[in-house]
Amino acid sequence: MTREQLIEQIFAKKSFLCVGLDTDAKKIPAHLLDLHDPIVEFNKAIIDATAPYCVAYKPNLAFYEAHGTHGMIAFKKTVEYIREKHPNHLIIADAKRGDIGNTSKMYARTFFEEYDVDSLTVAPYMGEDSVTPFLGYDGKWVVLLALTSNKGSQDFQLMKDENGERLFEKVLKTSMQWGTAENMMYVVGATQGRMFEDIRRIAPRHFLLVPGVGAQGGSLAEVCQYGMTSDCGLLVNSSRAIIYASCDEDFASIAAEKAKEMQQEMEVELKRIKG
Amino acid sequence: MTREQLIEQIFAKKSFLCVGLDTDAKKIPAHLLDLHDPIVEFNKAIIDATAPYCVAYKPNLAFYEAHGTHGMIAFKKTVEYIREKHPNHLIIADAKRGDIGNTSKMYARTFFEEYDVDSLTVAPYMGEDSVTPFLGYDGKWVVLLALTSNKGSQDFQLMKDENGERLFEKVLKTSMQWGTAENMMYVVGATQGRMFEDIRRIAPRHFLLVPGVGAQGGSLAEVCQYGMTSDCGLLVNSSRAIIYASCDEDFASIAAEKAKEMQQEMEVELKRIKG
Repeated sequence: MTREQLIEQIFAKKSFLCVGLDTDAKKIPAHLLDLHDPIVEFNKAIIDATAPYCVAYKPNLAFYEAHGTHGMIAFKKTVEYIREKHPNHLIIADAKRGDIGNTSKMYARTFFEEYDVDSLTVAPYMGEDSVTPFLGYDGKWVVLLALTSNKGSQDFQLMKDENGERLFEKVLKTSMQWGTAENMMYVVGATQGRMFEDIRRIAPRHFLLVPGVGAQGGSLAEVCQYGMTSDCGLLVNSSRAIIYASCDEDFASIAAEKAKEMQQEMEVELKRIKG
Repeated sequence: MTREQLIEQIFAKKSFLCVGLDTDAKKIPAHLLDLHDPIVEFNKAIIDATAPYCVAYKPNLAFYEAHGTHGMIAFKKTVEYIREKHPNHLIIADAKRGDIGNTSKMYARTFFEEYDVDSLTVAPYMGEDSVTPFLGYDGKWVVLLALTSNKGSQDFQLMKDENGERLFEKVLKTSMQWGTAENMMYVVGATQGRMFEDIRRIAPRHFLLVPGVGAQGGSLAEVCQYGMTSDCGLLVNSSRAIIYASCDEDFASIAAEKAKEMQQEMEVELKRIKG
């Protein structure tokens, strides 16, 4: 999916919601557990229910790898289902990969060719040759970790150099020489508040993937106030607050309600930039 | 495997070699391709041939994930084979994982419980809560990226703060408050030469996992000169230079020869510390 297509989807649906498919077999409704493939069945129901209100899905690989090979089959089936039934939704594999060039190339092939997702989260610690192998695919995106939503983001990401430049700023500036706003996004946690202003000073056009609204305590209004651009420039993720809003038989319709609530808040925010 | 057991193995075998199982279906000998599971058959032959000369095996997950679910089955079978036939060898899953606490906990369960490897490489960018979930397992190890072997290691890992402390040094110092020399090792590339002295100033006792000897150009003698401790403190990895030394029917015996050559060089180095 190109940047232009993504922006088109956002304004057509009046939403920049990404639904995180962090599907945990221990948390899905009991009545699904007797089915042949509970994780896939849960995902299908969540996807169909939330599709009108979101523009992206983000399965986190940790939750699929946890079930070994069965889990990876569930991941593959989930991606295929989105592709087939909801082809205008962006699929982000949240895998936080990154290794020496030779090995990153292998991961790129796996995720972009074998699983055919649109984008992959990548960790920047190993530098240029660990990231650029993911950039050689038309219509595919690298989503590079910049300033994450967790408490540990403060351990290294805020380290300042002699000139007061922080590590996450260096990651932004340096990586902007590797990719463009057409094939690279950044992860910036919703918990980072006004730091979005610092991000936007360096990367005024890039899309930001924003986790941490909801369960982790970030505020949508704040993220929009400091991080939104005239093209929107945001994909705000919510996982647990949507997919586990109910663990009864009504889980899908309740997930839809929660997604719709977020979409409506987003619609208000979008009106500010394109009234 | 405990630190004590690892040291015992190193001095018993006069080797601190780790064989990297970066098994690429495109590079394994043609005569194996007709077998039911070429990757597993290749690994078994390499493992049996090299076991006398090494103390650890390091499968890189990228190479297994590349084959989707079949690849992950091959990874699992490889780990099980080492456990069964060569129970004194340390198994390092080279996966470079790391995510928010909740998700890292899931990865820890996957690798330490489901696959039952001894240790896992972890990326430090996301800080404390992304690393500590891997530390709660008896006899299991985190192998944290510190100063990697690739060119991109220079992009961020060498960034200096106001006091001249570099990012990799901050990663060492900070993470030494999370784990100990009994459950944490660091990745330091063989290409880093005298930087091993800087590492040892901060982490005099920790084991270092050292990739980059051989194909990537690092020197064993230099690594030992600057990085070895009285307990050895090193696991030096070689992948391609051993496992692809021959792509004919003699691949396993040639791999054994290459591993033995490295073991013999290591024996000389070990004599310097315990003559």
